[in-house]
Amino acid sequence: MRVGVADTTFSRVNMGAIAIDELKKHASVAIERVTVPGIKDLPVACKKLIEERRCDIVMALGMPGGQEKDRLCAHEASQGLIMCQLMTNTHIIEVFVHEDEAKDGRELAWLAEQRTVLHPRDLEREAGTGQRQGFADAGPARR
Amino acid sequence: MRVGVADTTFSRVNMGAIAIDELKKHASVAIERVTVPGIKDLPVACKKLIEERRCDIVMALGMPGGQEKDRLCAHEASQGLIMCQLMTNTHIIEVFVHEDEAKDGRELAWLAEQRTVLHPRDLEREAGTGQRQGFADAGPARR
Amino acid sequence: MRVGVADTTFSRVNMGAIAIDELKKHASVAIERVTVPGIKDLPVACKKLIEERRCDIVMALGMPGGQEKDRLCAHEASQGLIMCQLMTNTHIIEVFVHEDEAKDGRELAWLAEQRTVLHPRDLEREAGTGQRQGFADAGPARR
Amino acid sequence: MRVGVADTTFSRVNMGAIAIDELKKHASVAIERVTVPGIKDLPVACKKLIEERRCDIVMALGMPGGQEKDRLCAHEASQGLIMCQLMTNTHIIEVFVHEDEAKDGRELAWLAEQRTVLHPRDLEREAGTGQRQGFADAGPARR
Amino acid sequence: MRVGVADTTFSRVNMGAIAIDELKKHASVAIERVTVPGIKDLPVACKKLIEERRCDIVMALGMPGGQEKDRLCAHEASQGLIMCQLMTNTHIIEVFVHEDEAKDGRELAWLAEQRTVLHPRDLEREAGTGQRQGFADAGPARR
Repeated sequence: MRVGVADTTFSRVNMGAIAIDELKKHASVAIERVTVPGIKDLPVACKKLIEERRCDIVMALGMPGGQEKDRLCAHEASQGLIMCQLMTNTHIIEVFVHEDEAKDGRELAWLAEQRTVLHPRDLEREAGTGQRQGFADAGPARR
Repeated sequence: MRVGVADTTFSRVNMGAIAIDELKKHASVAIERVTVPGIKDLPVACKKLIEERRCDIVMALGMPGGQEKDRLCAHEASQGLIMCQLMTNTHIIEVFVHEDEAKDGRELAWLAEQRTVLHPRDLEREAGTGQRQGFADAGPARR
Repeated sequence: MRVGVADTTFSRVNMGAIAIDELKKHASVAIERVTVPGIKDLPVACKKLIEERRCDIVMALGMPGGQEKDRLCAHEASQGLIMCQLMTNTHIIEVFVHEDEAKDGRELAWLAEQRTVLHPRDLEREAGTGQRQGFADAGPARR
Repeated sequence: MRVGVADTTFSRVNMGAIAIDELKKHASVAIERVTVPGIKDLPVACKKLIEERRCDIVMALGMPGGQEKDRLCAHEASQGLIMCQLMTNTHIIEVFVHEDEAKDGRELAWLAEQRTVLHPRDLEREAGTGQRQGFADAGPARR
Repeated sequence: MRVGVADTTFSRVNMGAIAIDELKKHASVAIERVTVPGIKDLPVACKKLIEERRCDIVMALGMPGGQEKDRLCAHEASQGLIMCQLMTNTHIIEVFVHEDEAKDGRELAWLAEQRTVLHPRDLEREAGTGQRQGFADAGPARR
């Protein structure tokens, strides 16, 4: 399996490096990486990883800022990633860590690492169990 | 008929299992299931169920969280599901149960079950009768 | 000419029946009808009417609820209808009557009937005359 | 060159007629006109002007109302016009005059005329000079 | 390499000229330029630069106004630019400078120049270092 990793220079954490470290623990995975300026550059970067560098799945890693306009950028990027998936029939794992989700730089780095590391295991999880990535799980509703 | 069922690990109710239990009561239906992390992963999952696993119709089951950003995710997912349907000429039944529609876990579980169970019956309903899924119907306007 | 009529079970007025009654007054029109659960199901329903049942034009009839989330649904449906038209080079006449446009059930039924009935005549109207469907016209600006 | 002109019956000013008067002053231009009910009907109308009536460029003329829901309609129409341009590699000149931009009917008519007349001259303008259509220009930033 | 430069007459700074000056410092680059009225005209302009004038990458330069409706225009333009990239598998570098990001015309001109000049250097940057274009960098999170 060939896994694409797309991240940004805008991010304050080297999310691509964290993802690749984790992916390398899984033996037989080939990795293709690309770094773009910001999250709005991720959709086409992912499409090129899929179509030109033959990735079977892609991780799109970004860290939107905490302002209103940053949330709009994230929205635009997400819509582009969904469209990219529909055009290629290929899953893209979107890992966006919003700057305002953490109270300082250390927590932000920790959160980015948690989310990025957790994602390669997603497919083996169980349905309907209230998984929350990087925070305590919500758990199933009928406890 | 082959029915696809796509649900999420983020959901706190096993909506996929509920849907499949209900579908099995209808005799001649083959079922294909896939579970993805969150609702934004549903559009491409549905497209693959339609194009790669030859489903004639798909149920997209999700439980968005109660925060503002969760509502935006649901909006992005819905737009992706509409685009997927236009690209494939295939109906996708979207069953989203928002966490903030219920006052506790028990009601949430009940609501999710109501809506998921009701949808396989969608095709038999009558037009213009004010159906509301999981709550009392609004009824026709000219009573 | 073959006219498609798509309406919803969510609507509290049988808009499809009203539209068909009106269309039948025009002699040489063949009609294809489909009823779907809600307005977000209309885009693909219209696409299938155009491509699979060979309609030359389609009426998409819906009655969004009065809550904020209903307005978002209507927005998503409208975008899907616009995309559907671009994909098929075929006009879709969107007739959405919002529940909160009328003060009670009778006015709602009246409004739905006005709008649905008016639409088949749209193409013969004059440009720039401030037409408002179901309410008093605004009239031209330079009176 | 063949220029398409698409306008609406919803508009309170006959924008199509104004545009055509202006275009006819430029000698060798063939004109194709279509009038649709509202601005959300413009995207497919423009696509048909381009693909079925072979226009090289199209003017999309509309006058959205002053309410919140009218602004949403204009947003949906604009997105459709952008998508139409991407699908056809053809420029569409969007001239939308919002009812709430003018204080009365006379100013509205004047503003619509100003904008519609100005657009056929767009292509000859200079870059980076702060052009504002129908109002005093903002001018370059470094005066 | 052939670089496309698309800018607008609406902008109060000649962003296209600044970009071309900077690009010319990089020796072996061919440049194609087009100027359109406003930012919503940029998506199709970029698509034509890519498909008809064979550009390998495009810079889309714009200066949205400071009002709410201008932010909506920028959002629509951004979505169109993302779609254009997905349709062409080609990167578009979006450089939008919002009028309300600067306190006067001089700062606006300076900011536009900073951002436009920085972008040709984008490709050489490092990932995860918190780059902020035209303002002090945020820096990496774990200092």
